[in-house]
Amino acid sequence: MTRVVLHPWFPPEVDTALKAVPGISLHVAADQDDVAAAMQDGAEVLVTSFWRDDYLTPSLKWIAGTGAGTEQYPKDLLAEQSVVLTTAHGVHASCVAEHAFALLLGTVRHIGAAVRDMVQHEWTPRVGEELAGKNMLVVGLGLIGEEVARRASAWDMEVRGVKRQPVGYSGPVAHVVGPDELHPMLEWADVVVVAAPSTPQTRGVIGAKELELLGSGWLVNVGRGDLVDTGALLEALTDGRLRGAGLDVTWPEPLPTDSPLWDLPQVVLSAHMAGNSPSFGPRWAKIFESNLEAFRGSSSQWTNRFDLGGAK
Amino acid sequence: MTRVVLHPWFPPEVDTALKAVPGISLHVAADQDDVAAAMQDGAEVLVTSFWRDDYLTPSLKWIAGTGAGTEQYPKDLLAEQSVVLTTAHGVHASCVAEHAFALLLGTVRHIGAAVRDMVQHEWTPRVGEELAGKNMLVVGLGLIGEEVARRASAWDMEVRGVKRQPVGYSGPVAHVVGPDELHPMLEWADVVVVAAPSTPQTRGVIGAKELELLGSGWLVNVGRGDLVDTGALLEALTDGRLRGAGLDVTWPEPLPTDSPLWDLPQVVLSAHMAGNSPSFGPRWAKIFESNLEAFRGSSSQWTNRFDLGGAK
Repeated sequence: MTRVVLHPWFPPEVDTALKAVPGISLHVAADQDDVAAAMQDGAEVLVTSFWRDDYLTPSLKWIAGTGAGTEQYPKDLLAEQSVVLTTAHGVHASCVAEHAFALLLGTVRHIGAAVRDMVQHEWTPRVGEELAGKNMLVVGLGLIGEEVARRASAWDMEVRGVKRQPVGYSGPVAHVVGPDELHPMLEWADVVVVAAPSTPQTRGVIGAKELELLGSGWLVNVGRGDLVDTGALLEALTDGRLRGAGLDVTWPEPLPTDSPLWDLPQVVLSAHMAGNSPSFGPRWAKIFESNLEAFRGSSSQWTNRFDLGGAK
Repeated sequence: MTRVVLHPWFPPEVDTALKAVPGISLHVAADQDDVAAAMQDGAEVLVTSFWRDDYLTPSLKWIAGTGAGTEQYPKDLLAEQSVVLTTAHGVHASCVAEHAFALLLGTVRHIGAAVRDMVQHEWTPRVGEELAGKNMLVVGLGLIGEEVARRASAWDMEVRGVKRQPVGYSGPVAHVVGPDELHPMLEWADVVVVAAPSTPQTRGVIGAKELELLGSGWLVNVGRGDLVDTGALLEALTDGRLRGAGLDVTWPEPLPTDSPLWDLPQVVLSAHMAGNSPSFGPRWAKIFESNLEAFRGSSSQWTNRFDLGGAK
């Protein structure tokens, strides 16, 4: 039996799905200390998207990530100890793309303001805008960014993308540039959707200068909160240059109680839930089961294995 | 100069667009009494989507409607007096379709609940659902219904439609049935989008029985409020059978201050604003200018002329 520990903050249905996997001994941790204790007790596999340094015990062999990002993990230390890191890459791409549009339409069609009117029992017609005919720039053309782009194209928007390595890109977006061309693309765009991972290169990629170039448009962030400069965003929103924002991620996160973002009617904010769907568990478990074969040596084919580099 | 009266409750930019039309003398009415007074004073053309019986003066020759519906007009009386009635058919189809998705995603992805959390400054992740893979039934396959269907198909939903006259239908929806097959279609559907006009045949088309057949799904209404039985809707929502609703129209309208609909977090309600867009005025004015030619007899081609029937 492979000893598997499940971090208590897991996406929908991951526990149910894991309970159905044969040949594993599953411990669903009660809290973060319990995760550390179970790892100390000799467990080999940790299912998590959160990290604390005391999870790294000599017995840890495989982190089966339930998130798409990897910025939280101590990659050098993991590489040193030959721990395998896998991610949930692609598991929630279509769900996150739909959520990106829920946030975008929420600000563009004034749904955020309408729900605030509901709270007041007020019938107040408002004039929204149309997406059709507008220009969308997707920053980060991974699976999520591509799913966003595909949906926007089908809805009569013109779509372009920014990608770290645009050379040789052969995906569904026709016009793709590198980060060095971000600025002219922002001038072209009406809507910017940020769907990039958090890396030293992407942090703060949307700051005061970039929001100025976007001008009278809309910003959606379904990537990571630290890709956008929160202070610059607030300034662009409150002085009315930026028309609205849809944010599933913030910096810091959770958003502090006293943040002015909570009270802006042109902002639609959700609590890092874009990937949450009852379909997550079953889809993720398929990858987990396949990787379990690789872990046990009966297959050499890992899925979504993150390259920890030559740190070792 | 053709004397034109503009009703004070007009869609976005209609006033600006009309001011640019050559050869008309435009009176923008201050209120409903002023509309009646200006018509009494001999104006020939009334631009409106609202009706009051005292607008029907002997001088009235043409109602240039700014709405898609015609249920408010006294058709027999208009026909008797040979008044021409034109509508804004198709002017806001893409805008309404986008708004229908804003409402649908608003309930399916819990944006309504998230905005209520914003009001409380609360960070509460929730688990939404995905549209991809779900079944959508569009009730009413006019231009708006078709634009909704097209968007849903492109987002990996299976779409079917109910249409008064399904025989000979050659539009973009592959599976179209008549009203007599509404019930089995409701059983099939996860999402129902109502986009029909209000007629004696469509009023109350979604009642207790229909909501029972839909079961655990979502309802969106961008047609008219009286197509859905408000009491039955409230019951299905409060007992938890219906997962959520997105409503741009209500019955009665405006929604009374004491309606329980205002306070349901699984309901996203907007104040009859689905067609509101700054693009409305310019698009509508193109039809108006073309119809002005017909009105003046220099063309025989009316656009969007409503058939008032043989009442005369």
